[in-house]
Formats: sequence, C-alpha cells, structure tokens
Amino acid sequence: MGSNEDDKDPELTPPPVEPPTGSGDGDGNGNGGGLSEGWGLAEEGQHRIGEPDVPALEDRADVTQEIRAVAESRGDDSNVVDLPLLGGEEAPAPRQPTAPGAPEPVEPLSPDELRDAWPFLDLHERSDGLLILPREEAEDFFIALTPEDQAALLRHWRPGLRRQWLRMLEPDDVADVIQALPEEERTGMFGLLDAPTRKEVQALLAYEEDEAGGLMNPRYARLRPNMTADEAISYLRRQARTRVETIYYAYVLDAQVKLLGVCSFRDLFAADPKKTVAEIMETDVVRVNDEMDQETVSRVFAEHDLTVIPVVDKDGVMKGIVTVDDIVDVVQEEATEDAQKFGGMEALDMPYLQSTWKDMLTKRGGWLAILLIGEMLTTTALGYFQKEMEASVYLSMFMPLIISSGGNSGSQGSTLVIRAMALGEVRIRDWWRILGRELITGLALGLFLGTLVFLRVLVWGAFGTYGASYEILAVTIGASVIAVVTFGTLAGAMLPFVLRSFKLDPASASAPFVATLCDVTGLIMFFTIAKLILTGILL
Amino acid sequence: MGSNEDDKDPELTPPPVEPPTGSGDGDGNGNGGGLSEGWGLAEEGQHRIGEPDVPALEDRADVTQEIRAVAESRGDDSNVVDLPLLGGEEAPAPRQPTAPGAPEPVEPLSPDELRDAWPFLDLHERSDGLLILPREEAEDFFIALTPEDQAALLRHWRPGLRRQWLRMLEPDDVADVIQALPEEERTGMFGLLDAPTRKEVQALLAYEEDEAGGLMNPRYARLRPNMTADEAISYLRRQARTRVETIYYAYVLDAQVKLLGVCSFRDLFAADPKKTVAEIMETDVVRVNDEMDQETVSRVFAEHDLTVIPVVDKDGVMKGIVTVDDIVDVVQEEATEDAQKFGGMEALDMPYLQSTWKDMLTKRGGWLAILLIGEMLTTTALGYFQKEMEASVYLSMFMPLIISSGGNSGSQGSTLVIRAMALGEVRIRDWWRILGRELITGLALGLFLGTLVFLRVLVWGAFGTYGASYEILAVTIGASVIAVVTFGTLAGAMLPFVLRSFKLDPASASAPFVATLCDVTGLIMFFTIAKLILTGILL
Repeated sequence: MGSNEDDKDPELTPPPVEPPTGSGDGDGNGNGGGLSEGWGLAEEGQHRIGEPDVPALEDRADVTQEIRAVAESRGDDSNVVDLPLLGGEEAPAPRQPTAPGAPEPVEPLSPDELRDAWPFLDLHERSDGLLILPREEAEDFFIALTPEDQAALLRHWRPGLRRQWLRMLEPDDVADVIQALPEEERTGMFGLLDAPTRKEVQALLAYEEDEAGGLMNPRYARLRPNMTADEAISYLRRQARTRVETIYYAYVLDAQVKLLGVCSFRDLFAADPKKTVAEIMETDVVRVNDEMDQETVSRVFAEHDLTVIPVVDKDGVMKGIVTVDDIVDVVQEEATEDAQKFGGMEALDMPYLQSTWKDMLTKRGGWLAILLIGEMLTTTALGYFQKEMEASVYLSMFMPLIISSGGNSGSQGSTLVIRAMALGEVRIRDWWRILGRELITGLALGLFLGTLVFLRVLVWGAFGTYGASYEILAVTIGASVIAVVTFGTLAGAMLPFVLRSFKLDPASASAPFVATLCDVTGLIMFFTIAKLILTGILL
Repeated sequence: MGSNEDDKDPELTPPPVEPPTGSGDGDGNGNGGGLSEGWGLAEEGQHRIGEPDVPALEDRADVTQEIRAVAESRGDDSNVVDLPLLGGEEAPAPRQPTAPGAPEPVEPLSPDELRDAWPFLDLHERSDGLLILPREEAEDFFIALTPEDQAALLRHWRPGLRRQWLRMLEPDDVADVIQALPEEERTGMFGLLDAPTRKEVQALLAYEEDEAGGLMNPRYARLRPNMTADEAISYLRRQARTRVETIYYAYVLDAQVKLLGVCSFRDLFAADPKKTVAEIMETDVVRVNDEMDQETVSRVFAEHDLTVIPVVDKDGVMKGIVTVDDIVDVVQEEATEDAQKFGGMEALDMPYLQSTWKDMLTKRGGWLAILLIGEMLTTTALGYFQKEMEASVYLSMFMPLIISSGGNSGSQGSTLVIRAMALGEVRIRDWWRILGRELITGLALGLFLGTLVFLRVLVWGAFGTYGASYEILAVTIGASVIAVVTFGTLAGAMLPFVLRSFKLDPASASAPFVATLCDVTGLIMFFTIAKLILTGILL
C-alpha cells in the first residue's frame, strides 16, 4: 500500500524502513542503535552519485568547513553552553575513516557544530550538514528538529530519502510535519507512510495542534486486566520490539478500549509473578481529555509531577499518551508567546532568526499602529488643557515623568497577574483578592515615588529652576504621582482579568498597552489635579 | 543513627519508613501504592488523640467543608482546567467509610479541591486538609508541593509526623526543603534522616540550587560492563526494590565510577540474553556537568529530546541523574523570572499569592525608584528646550505620542531578543546580525508609523486644531516618529546584548527600562528635529 513509489528509483530507496526502536522510539535516551548498520553513506558514496540530496564525497570536507566556520563565528557563548560537555565522548577521534580519494582529512562534523551553525544555514547547507553526520547522530538530530525544519528538509529531499526519513518519525511528529506543510503537498507526504501509520496520523490530524489530542502518541503499551504479572511482562517484551513509545507504563484496557488502570513496568517487575494485572494496577489514574488545551495539560503534569499521562475521550476510551518531554516544548512555546505578547506584539510562532520580513512587519507593525492610535488620545486630551500648558511650561516639563511612572507600575502589576494566571495560581474569580492586594501595594508605591518626586522638585526648585511657586508645584506633582501610580498598578493588575473574562489572552495586557492606557488617563489626572491645586497660583 | 528520636513518643512514630517504591519513587506515575496499608488515620483516629497536627475525627467534616467553600469560591475557571477530568475516577463514591460517631456524613475531600483552595489556606488549614486526604493521595499531593510549602508543613508538624513525611521525599527534594528552611532549623531536620540519605543530601547541598548538581538525584540504576543482559536484568530487578529514581535507564560504570555508557531497560530486554552490557550499551551519552547552569541543562534536554540525562563531574565521575519532569519546573521558573524582570521588577521567586507585603514593596519599589530617577532626566532634558516649549504648545502636546512610540517599538525589540537568547537561538556574537535585521525593521516600522502620524496632524490641522503652520508641524512630527521608532527598535534589541556582555541578565532590558531610555533620548531627538525644521516658523 504505502510502498507503491518504490519502483521509481529502486536503487535509491533502501528496503522499507522499520521504525528504529532505539533512537526513534521517543523514549528519550536518544542514544539508540537505530539504523546505523543499514547506513553506508561514507563507505558507499558511489551509490549516491547522481542523487542531488547527498553531498558527494569530495564535497564533504568543504561542507564541514563551511558549517564549522559559521559555528565558530557565533562563539562559545560560555555564559550559556559549555559545548565540549554536550557532545559526550565523540570529540576528537574521527568516527569514520576518510575514504581514499578524499582531498584531505578533515575532522568529521559534530552534531554540536551543526546545531550551532543551524540558524544561519540555508536549506541546502542544512541538508548537506545533516547528511554528512554519522547516521545515528543524524537521526537523533533530525528527530529533535522542529516540525517546520523537518518539513522543509523533507520537501527538499527526493522521494526516496524523504520516505526513509519521514518513516523515522513517530506518528505525532509526522502529524506535526504534515501540519507544517503547504496544503497541496500534504497528500503526497501521506502517500509515503505505511497504511497503519497513515491511519494513526489521520486520527491525530483531527485534533487541533494545541490540544491534548494533537500532542499525544497513539502508540502506547497495553495490557488486559486478567493477565498475570509474568504474562504481562512477556507481553510487554513483545510490544517493546514494536512501535510503542514507552513500555514503562502500560495501560490496562477493557474490551471497549476503556482505561481501567495503569501498571508501571517497575511494579509488574517487583510483583508476585502470579498476581493479576488487575491486582497490581493503579485504578486512580490521572488522565486528560483529548480536547483539553495544551497549557492545561502542562499544568496537570506540573501539579502531579508525572512523566506520562494517558489521553481519553469523553467516554473514557483510551486514545494515546502524552509524555513530559513534549510538555517541555509546550511550556517553552507558551512562555515565548506570552513574552512576545507582553512585549507588545503578536506572537511570532517561529524562531526569531527564521522569521521573514513580512512576519516582522505585520506582527509588530499591527500592534504598534493600534498603540499609536491609542496614544493619539494623549494629544486629544492635552487639547483640553492647552490653556494650562500655556500658563505654566513646568507642567509640560513634568508630564513624561508622571505618565511614565503610571506605565511602569502598571507593567509590574500586569506581568505579575499574567504569570500567576499562566501558572494557574490565579483564576478569574480571584479578581477581588488581587484588587485588594494591588490597591494597597499601589498606594504604598505611589506614596514612596510621590515623596521622591516631591523632594526632587523642592530641591531643584530651591535653586530657582521651577520659578517662584515651586513648593506648591512640588505638592501638585507629588500628588499626581501618587494618583497615577495607584491607578496604574490597579489598571495593570485588573486588565488581564478583563481580557480573560472576554475570552481574550490575558498576556495581551502588554507593557506598551498598559503604558498607553496610563499615559492617557495619567495626563487627565495630572492636569485635573494641577487645575484644582494651582488655579490662581500658576494657572 | 537517624532513629534516635523514636523513643520520644513511640506510639506516634510509625516503624521506620522505607521510601515508597510507588508514589515516592519519582518515576512519575504518581499512582504508586506507597504506604497506604500502613496508614490508618481514618480508622484509627483514636491513636492520634493528643497529637495536635492531625484534625480530630469530629473536625474532619468541618475542615472538608471549609476547604471546599474556598475551592468553590474560586470558580471552575472552565477556560483553563476541566476539573472533573483531572481527578481520575475517585469522584463521588466515598473512599473511606465515615467512622461511627462522626457528626454527619460529608463527602470526603478530594485532592483537587484541596489544590484549588491551597493558595488561600493558612498553614493550619493546609495541614488539616492534607492529613484528612486518603494517605496515598496525601503522599502524592505532598510530593508534588513546592519545597517552600513542604518546608512550612514539616516545620508545622511534630517530630514524629515530620520524620515520617520527610523520609518520603527523594534526596534531591529533601535538599530543596532544607534550603527552604531557616538556617537554624536545618540541623534539626537533618537529624530526622537516616544516615545514608543524610550523606546523599549533604553532597547535594554542596551545589548551588540552580546548577545541575542541585537538580540531580543521586539514586540511579547502575550496571557493570561485563554483566550479561540476563544478569543485568535481574540486577536491575533487585535495584527496582530499592531507592533508585528509575530503572529504565541504567548507567554503566567502571571501577572508578566513571560513566562508560547507558543501557535502556528496553534495549536490555530486547537483546540476546547472553550479550554483555558492554556490547549493548550506548557509549555516546549526552551528559551534563554537575556545575552547569540549570537553564543550560534545560536547553540540553530540549535539543536532544531526552527524558533522563546523567550528571558527571569534571573527571567524568557519575554523580546522579536529572529527569525531564524536574526540567518542566525549571523552564516554568525561568520563564516566570524573565517575565517579571521584563515587566520591570525583581523576580518574585515565589507564587504571587504567597508573597509578603515586604516582597511586593521591595521587589517592585526598588526598580520603580530607579526608573523614576531615570525618568527625571526627561525633566532635565526638557529644561534645555524650555524656550521651544514656550514658543509652541503644540510640540508639548505631541510629546507623549512621540516618546511612547519609541518605547513601544523598543519593547518589541527587546522581548524578541531576550526570548531568542533564553531559547539559545541567539548568542552574544550574533549581535551584528540582529543589528542589521532590527535596523531595517525599525526604519520600516518608523516610516509606517511616521506616515500615520503625519496624516493625522494634516487632517486635524486642516480643521484648524494646530494653528496656521500645521503642514510643517506635521512634517516635524512625522520625521521625529521615524527617528524615535528606529532608535527605539535598535536600542531595545541591542540592550540585552549589552547587559549580557556585562554578565547581567538580558531580561533586565525590561519594557519600562527601554521605555525610559526612549523617553529621554526621544525628547532630545524630537526637540532637536523641531529646532532644525521649525526655527523661524513656529520657534
């Protein structure tokens, strides 16, 4: 079924690839045996002649040196990554003898060098770099790439190579790759899968990318309740050779595939061999619903300190498992999205260096334009205070100071609430408890900052900087700072609740958004206070 | 050694507790058997009389109802957590019969209800809530708490209870708890551990909390290279009953405890039973150094898609393992720290709702004061432009609009670079590539926003809002926005590099910090441009 393209170029497509049980099984040791034996790129370079995807033998040294140069130009960044430590023991000893005829012996490329250079390589260089790695390392490298990078490479490769690498991925990863492809190429990629995988992938594609069903792997180890521990172990032993993601947690299902319980391999192993699975299993299983949002799934992992969670549908039918290593990616992704929204832009949804000009301009320009239009209200507001501005230039001189203190305190309030919401510490109904806390905090901070500003105006004023009535000016400005900081703190803290109750992302209560809000209201507060205090004196 | 407190109140301290192999083994199913049999709180309430930690039988209903009320007051927050799904099957059926004599039958408290109410409970209520849970669930709940919460509960409990619960934790968790205790109570807590654990914990405490050594668990499964697969499996079977965190990855060590390789249990299981471990093991092991920063460790996990990584010292001696479930916490923690710094405050280092007034005021007030002092420079700068401000009030009216557009675009630039750095996509030496990108982006965004503002001034000006020379005013303001946005974008993007090269946290290039920088420079740019263009016209 899935192998009807084999006849096109038989010598290029290796025999149908069984998914590797080592590196490709996703159980995370990343060091599995994989297909290393079947791979003979270095030794059998001649078979590859005419296949454009794989760099010819004599080019390997060039490719290596090019990539190495890029990697080195980025520096060690010793603050962050201690490179020599990451690569294990593969360091200097050449892992494969340079074939005779190669121009000069160049130390083979290491995966770490390729990883370093990756963001700055084009697609050709990436493909070349990957394909000259020792096969086993290339597999691990490929599996750890983002779905977007995987999709780009697969599209770049010829069908033979494409099939081989695609089949190395677990169904959940295949589903992600397919979603990263342009609509019109999806069917073609589907055709490269074997029939059972294709069915699994299709089932996964029915889910949204960001819900539990879109994260899960449908290949899990299963047991029947009436097996003995001994039977269960040998049954798992058989499953270990197949495609299940992990045999360390086996799920006990009834005839309707409903989840009855879970057995850790360790428990089975330690149990009396004659006991049944039903006696050994834990029935109180933490599970997630297949339509649950991935952010919630990550919170369930964190709250229960789990490594694997089963996914069930609304009838309790087992659908797959989500493993914690996928959750690390989810958490990073959500944190990045929130950070970017908080920074006042749309979430980029891709690595910064891989974004296009179009992404940069639309995702940043849109929000900036909205904020600018909001900020135009400051000009409108100031139009109403033109008389006061003309009467005393000192008010204008303190304007930026006053409005920014509101924005700054609002930015603190909103970041605290947004993070607390993201971590599940705070919910909508808690808003009034936060209101109380932030009201007191805001007042205290306002008094503190107001006093600072008051003193500054007094001291400078004593030297004649702010005219004759500088004492009363100091009071006006100090009072305005108190009002603006208190309001800013409260507005920043409450805005995420408002957004959330309108089903919007609380992270959109960004620092620039809060600052704009505080600018407009701050100006109105400032000039109103100034009018109240200074009329007849300065105004 | 570690049990010399047993004689104090013998009936209160249960027999020395072996660490549970199920729920407490940290291997993540969270559903293990644990000590359930040995626990008899509900049934044997009478033994607890006089022990103030455990709520008396007749109070259980009250405690349950109080906690339930708090949980319910927080609402379902259906956007986020689908509560009924999280608890597995424990839902309505009462799990333990109410003892005769209890005032009225109340449905027992569920862990989810307790988790919901947790942030708003005081220490007594937390302790009561935890202790009335069924033992097995209480254990899971306790293990999943933060070290700070664990430490607070342990301090609250009497020695008997304290010892029992402390011993349930893995050594790495014990080390975290000890670090969360006040200095003077650490020795006492140490005394409650058995001698081998005490030694393990002491070794862990030699590391910083945020380095690999502080994250690792020293209890890992080990093998010798010359064992056969069969011998290895039965050796692991013995280790499975002891305290190792996971038997699914076993580390092959030489006589000097140097790491030779890793065997997944699955590989051993699938291998020819007569093969030796040396033949089966992977020698190319991704490892981390014991002094590596936890942020880097999390990046190694992400880059290699691993679930367990061995920790070695600089001589290659195996020290312990780090598991990915700990990394989820690290990633969340780092993201929260970065978000809070970016929001313009010191990292809170604790859940928002658990922070004290002192934390709130010092961690927020300090930065606000610094920013305020920075912002005072705007007033100073405007002092130099007093003449221009008096000559045309319109300049002052557009001041907030212009300076804020710099702050907003700077905030975008810095959030992008900070996140890209946190994810390891961008390093210090890449600064000039970012400079190029951001220069072009900044110019493009500046042109776009400048045009918008230009048009706005023209249109309003046509209605006479901005006096007679409104066209030239429009040009001035448009040009200023272009300059300010370009500068803001660049400054925001470069500031994280500057901070990083001074070994400061790039996340301190916060939105308020960038905004303040842009306010000061923006004003100078604006009034300089205005002077150049408008002298002789408006000025």
